[in-house]
This record gives sequence, structure tokens and C-alpha cells, in this order.
Amino acid sequence: MKTYLDCIPCFMNQALKAGKLATSDEKTIKHLLDITGDNIKKIPMTATPAENGLHIYKSIREITGINDPYKSIKNQSISEAKELYPSLKEKIEKSSNPLLTAIRVAIAGNVIDFGVSNDFNLKKDLERILYQDFAILDIEKFENQLKKAKNILYLGDNAGESVFDKLLIETINLPTTYAVREVPVINDVVIEDAINSDLDKVAKIISSGSPAPGTILELCSPEFMKIYNSADIIISKGQGNYEGLSDAKRSIFFLLKAKCPVIARDLNVKLNDIILKGIN
Amino acid sequence: MKTYLDCIPCFMNQALKAGKLATSDEKTIKHLLDITGDNIKKIPMTATPAENGLHIYKSIREITGINDPYKSIKNQSISEAKELYPSLKEKIEKSSNPLLTAIRVAIAGNVIDFGVSNDFNLKKDLERILYQDFAILDIEKFENQLKKAKNILYLGDNAGESVFDKLLIETINLPTTYAVREVPVINDVVIEDAINSDLDKVAKIISSGSPAPGTILELCSPEFMKIYNSADIIISKGQGNYEGLSDAKRSIFFLLKAKCPVIARDLNVKLNDIILKGIN
Repeated sequence: MKTYLDCIPCFMNQALKAGKLATSDEKTIKHLLDITGDNIKKIPMTATPAENGLHIYKSIREITGINDPYKSIKNQSISEAKELYPSLKEKIEKSSNPLLTAIRVAIAGNVIDFGVSNDFNLKKDLERILYQDFAILDIEKFENQLKKAKNILYLGDNAGESVFDKLLIETINLPTTYAVREVPVINDVVIEDAINSDLDKVAKIISSGSPAPGTILELCSPEFMKIYNSADIIISKGQGNYEGLSDAKRSIFFLLKAKCPVIARDLNVKLNDIILKGIN
Repeated sequence: MKTYLDCIPCFMNQALKAGKLATSDEKTIKHLLDITGDNIKKIPMTATPAENGLHIYKSIREITGINDPYKSIKNQSISEAKELYPSLKEKIEKSSNPLLTAIRVAIAGNVIDFGVSNDFNLKKDLERILYQDFAILDIEKFENQLKKAKNILYLGDNAGESVFDKLLIETINLPTTYAVREVPVINDVVIEDAINSDLDKVAKIISSGSPAPGTILELCSPEFMKIYNSADIIISKGQGNYEGLSDAKRSIFFLLKAKCPVIARDLNVKLNDIILKGIN
């Protein structure tokens, strides 16, 4: 997916939000905004928003010296999600369609996205998404591929959401590799967050090698690309991974809530719609 | 009022919105965003947001050749407000406190602000504001100064809101000068819009000389400054004028709805609060 004009003010917002988390020094934050503003003319609109976004977080690390501004927010999200885990596990097991319920739970976790907004209520959004109609639901295609699959590559998105991903991985119950970002960007899951989410108990955790807030294949490691190319099924969570992979050549299933107008437009769905979309 | 860090992403948003209204050519809009981004490092945080904002609209005029991107939106706002005028006139006349009701109506008109959001509903907001408690209400001070006043300088803000200003001017019923922006910025009222709002029937309309979306005294004309310095009462509408005059040395009454978090914080009120605040 290309960068849209609407993404550009959003880059400035993200820089401001992350800058405020990294430091309380106004001059440093202003300097970060100066650099981000300066970079706008260098933004190739043909690149994905996630690719452009990585420069913001690189600047934050360089200017503030803070590696992971969202660290404590991520820990809090993981704790909150873990509290909900037992009741959601029970809900899935008792469901007449455990796979679909687990998919809904995994999508519900996708609201924990500080890149788009701070304004979400995990419990309320969860309740809604458990009963919300899908705008795109390629469930038959997904089930058919699952039947033949021997392994899964699961692309994580946000920390906290990762705990809900564990529920879907447990429900599918196939050997799974869970891929995370190479470096902290927004509140996206990195290896440490995945371990905090107990994903090491159900999957092999690897870094995709991508320092962007999304899976950008050109930036991924050879180790990841090997798994990417050979995986029987790829489950891609969230907007950032969709941005990087929407034009991919191989079969991928995107699970996400369309939280920003740009993604919704690209998917031809409405804002806040939920989707399970299989390509190729 | 100084520029806050939160104003900076808002500048980018304003450039994008106005750019889209001025042209459908994505490359031109991107160029406008490049220039706006480039200018961030030149922004003096000690200047008011309105002062910084004027550069955006200057760029829009220069890059797109469009003098007034909000022209048709302004005309529509004025028409809508004119439709409401007779019923509001009656409401004020029948009110037990016509002055306070006219003040409420004038503040309600302040929701017509495309600089902050497109997301308002004039009729609904009007109903709410007619019964909303004021966060600051210096009405005694205002009434006392009115009793002694022989003339009024009224600083207009948005086109459409201007029709509601007419109702307050008629209610006060003193010789009034209505000051507007020198050039089109956002959907702010300029001379033509003020005449379309029938303000010429109740006031002398002048330009303040300010090309910013607010009254910045350093940018105002000598003609305006003469009136500014000698007026018995100044009524200042909206956020932009507040930004320019919040630290002014003379007596001013600010009438506005706090529509953005930065203004609310500066006034020490909550978002969406309404105020009549008299300084000096």
C-alpha cells in the first residue's frame, strides 16, 4: 500500500506522541518535529506508510536516546490482556465455532494501537467485536488452507494484542512461528514483549528484521524471508503489516480492524470495520 | 498565547485540508505539505499559533493560485446561519435575559470552524449551547462596561458565525465596528463574507489588516489600531482572536467555545466549554 497524503499529518502526530513519551523536554520534542517536518519532502509517496514511519522512530531514538518510549505502556497493555485471557479462553472453548471466535478475539486485540489513537477501551471494544459483522470474511478459504497446512507464520502487530494472538495460535494448534519487529516502533511487539505475552510457550518467536511499524519485505532478514517463503499459511495482524504486504505475491490472510480512514479506503471498507481477508 | 507543540501537527492538518479544497492535484498538495513541513523548524514557539498559521495560507495562495479555498463552504455556512436567523431573533426577543441569550447564540455560531474540525452540526450544537453552563461568565463586568459604553469594536471570527454576531450586535444596540481578516484564512470572515451576512446593516465593517487567522496587533493596520485603542468595549470572538489578544494590555471580552485542547488548557477550562471572559 502506498503512502496517502492523509498519512503525512499522522506522521507528525506520531512523532509528537512518541516524543512526549520519550522526554518531557519541549526543546528536544520541537527538534524531533523539526526533523520530521524536514523529512516530509523526502517521503516517497510510492513507499508504504510503515516504511516512512520507521524514520520517525529512528529520529526519536537518535534525538532522545530513548530506545522504547512505549515500554511501560506496552507492559500495561500486556498485563491488561493477560487478565482477560482466562475468560476469553473459556469463551473460545465453549463457542460453537472456536476458530471464528478466536479470530474475533485476535482482531479485538488489534484495537490496542497507540499509533492511531489512545482512545480505546479494550473491554468494551472486545465485547463489540465479538458480535460485529465482518466487512470481509474469507473464512472458507482460510479453513480450507488450514486443513492442508503443517505450519503457520504469524505476523504480530501490537504488544498486548499479542496475548490475544496466543489464543488464536492455541486454537489453530499447528507449529507456529511468531514474527515481531526488529526494533521498538510505536507500541509494536518486539521479542521481549512476545515473551512477556507467553508466546514462547506456543510458538517460535523471531524478529522479522523489519525496523518499520509493519512487515516491509525489503527490510526483512534472510532468516525471516526463508520462513516467509516456505510457510503453509501466513496470518498477518494489523494495519502496519497490511501496509507492507497488501501487494504481496504469495497467499496471506489479513486480520485487522480498519482503524484509520486511509486503510479503510484502501480495503474498500468502512472505518472500524473488521476483516479476515485472504489474498492470492 | 504562545504556540504549543500540539499546534504543529494541527498546522499540517490545516495545510492538507485547505490544500484539498484548493486543488485536486496530489503533487501540488504534496508540495504544499513539503513547504509546511519545511517551515516547522522556522516556527517561533513564542509566536501565537495564528501568526504561524498565516504562513500556511500564504503558501496555499502562492502554490495553488487559489485565493480563498473555503469560499463555497463559507457561502454555505452563511446561508445555513441565515435560515436560523429569524427563529433565533425571536428566541432572543422573548428571552427573560436577551443579552445573555444573544451571547449564547453568538458563541454557538463559533462552532462553524473548519480550522479545528469539519465535524459539527450547527443546529444540534446551537441547542446544546443555549442551555450549556458557562465555564467562565464575566457577565456583570460586561454589563457594567456596556452601561457606560458609547461604541463597540467587535472582532469577527468565522463566516456563518458572523450572522449570529449580527444578533448580538442588534441586541446590544450601540454603534459598532465589525473587524474582519485582511485576506482569506481558513473559513474566517473577510469583508465580502461580512456583507453577505448583512453585517453592513448594523455595523461599520473594516479589515483589521491581519492576514493571520486571528487578530495579531503587530500585523494590524493603523486604521484598525486607532479604533482598537479608542473603543469603549472590545468583543473578541473565537480562538484565533484569543490567541492573538490573550496577553493584550487593554480591556477585552472573549466569547468562544474551547474547541481544541490547547486553547482549553490555556484558558484552564475543559474541551468544549463555553466562556465569556473579560480581561483588564
